[in-house]
Amino acid sequence: MSAFIEPIGRLINQFTKLPGVGAKTAQRYAYKVINMTEDEVKEFAESLLKAKSEVRYCSVCGNFTDRETCDICSTRDSSVICVVKEPKDVLAMEKAHEFKGVYHVLHGTISPMEGITPNDIKIKELLARIAQGGVEEIIMATNPDVEGEATAMYISSLIKPLGIKVSRLAHGIPVGSELEYADEITLSRAILDRKEI
Amino acid sequence: MSAFIEPIGRLINQFTKLPGVGAKTAQRYAYKVINMTEDEVKEFAESLLKAKSEVRYCSVCGNFTDRETCDICSTRDSSVICVVKEPKDVLAMEKAHEFKGVYHVLHGTISPMEGITPNDIKIKELLARIAQGGVEEIIMATNPDVEGEATAMYISSLIKPLGIKVSRLAHGIPVGSELEYADEITLSRAILDRKEI
Repeated sequence: MSAFIEPIGRLINQFTKLPGVGAKTAQRYAYKVINMTEDEVKEFAESLLKAKSEVRYCSVCGNFTDRETCDICSTRDSSVICVVKEPKDVLAMEKAHEFKGVYHVLHGTISPMEGITPNDIKIKELLARIAQGGVEEIIMATNPDVEGEATAMYISSLIKPLGIKVSRLAHGIPVGSELEYADEITLSRAILDRKEI
Repeated sequence: MSAFIEPIGRLINQFTKLPGVGAKTAQRYAYKVINMTEDEVKEFAESLLKAKSEVRYCSVCGNFTDRETCDICSTRDSSVICVVKEPKDVLAMEKAHEFKGVYHVLHGTISPMEGITPNDIKIKELLARIAQGGVEEIIMATNPDVEGEATAMYISSLIKPLGIKVSRLAHGIPVGSELEYADEITLSRAILDRKEI
């Protein structure tokens, strides 16, 4: 006899597919669902299905949208393109309320270790956008890790010859943190990239 | 313009209803769902609906079941009844592989602070089971907190006059823990309840 009756066991199993959810957490989630009203559970199930069926990728930038072209692409200045790895990075950038241009989502970064080549991510699509003209600057906002840096370097080597300005997000000490806790590489970058005040 | 497009925002909102899930975690879950295949999401949504529609309470003990009477009630010795607060406590008890009797789920504990009176939990149902005869012992396994203790005392005061043995789970130092970290109340209970070896 299994510890769980079948419908609960199956739901727990589904919850464990979510990132960072183990058996214990999945169990708590499942019990919570069983204690919801029927309407609440229906709404939950529908929102799962709708998120999957209605969300697609913007045909221009590759960000999530529920239309053909996303809100950002259809309303903002397209002369500056910020290149990010994933849709969630667009969100992170937007929260900073600093960038007023458009995005390009690569849907990955070059990683020879994982067999991800430049052809596996949306670099061709970026070059096609640039070929249409009007682009003045590309901001590389891939993560500051090995793959992100390599991807930024690779893309910049393709774009710079076209006479377009390519920049990279600044590295440095996070605002509000303490010097003591900054790792050495970050600190050395902060020193190298110091600004006159 | 909201940070999220509507179908994603709605799904995130649903995930935040799960216990301990904040906006950031809900967002990670939602993005994971969008990256699942259509079939996977369908399976997820169905398991939510089925858990809600198929799971009901055992007519005898009040534990979760997908039948009229749960597996435990229909197969085990019903002369010893272990009284617990919630269905998940049945699971915890079962994991110990020590108890061979049946359960009674109170679906709450008496709590004047929250306005939960003896009539709001399944005490009448427990007394009805006892009235049917054949019960030799009631083990009170409500939580060792104020409400759990009070509920155990209250129920025991109703049952003892019927000539039925009422016991309480032992308190003491958790196995594998260190004396140093035991709180004072636990330690004092462990001293009072010491056993000859």
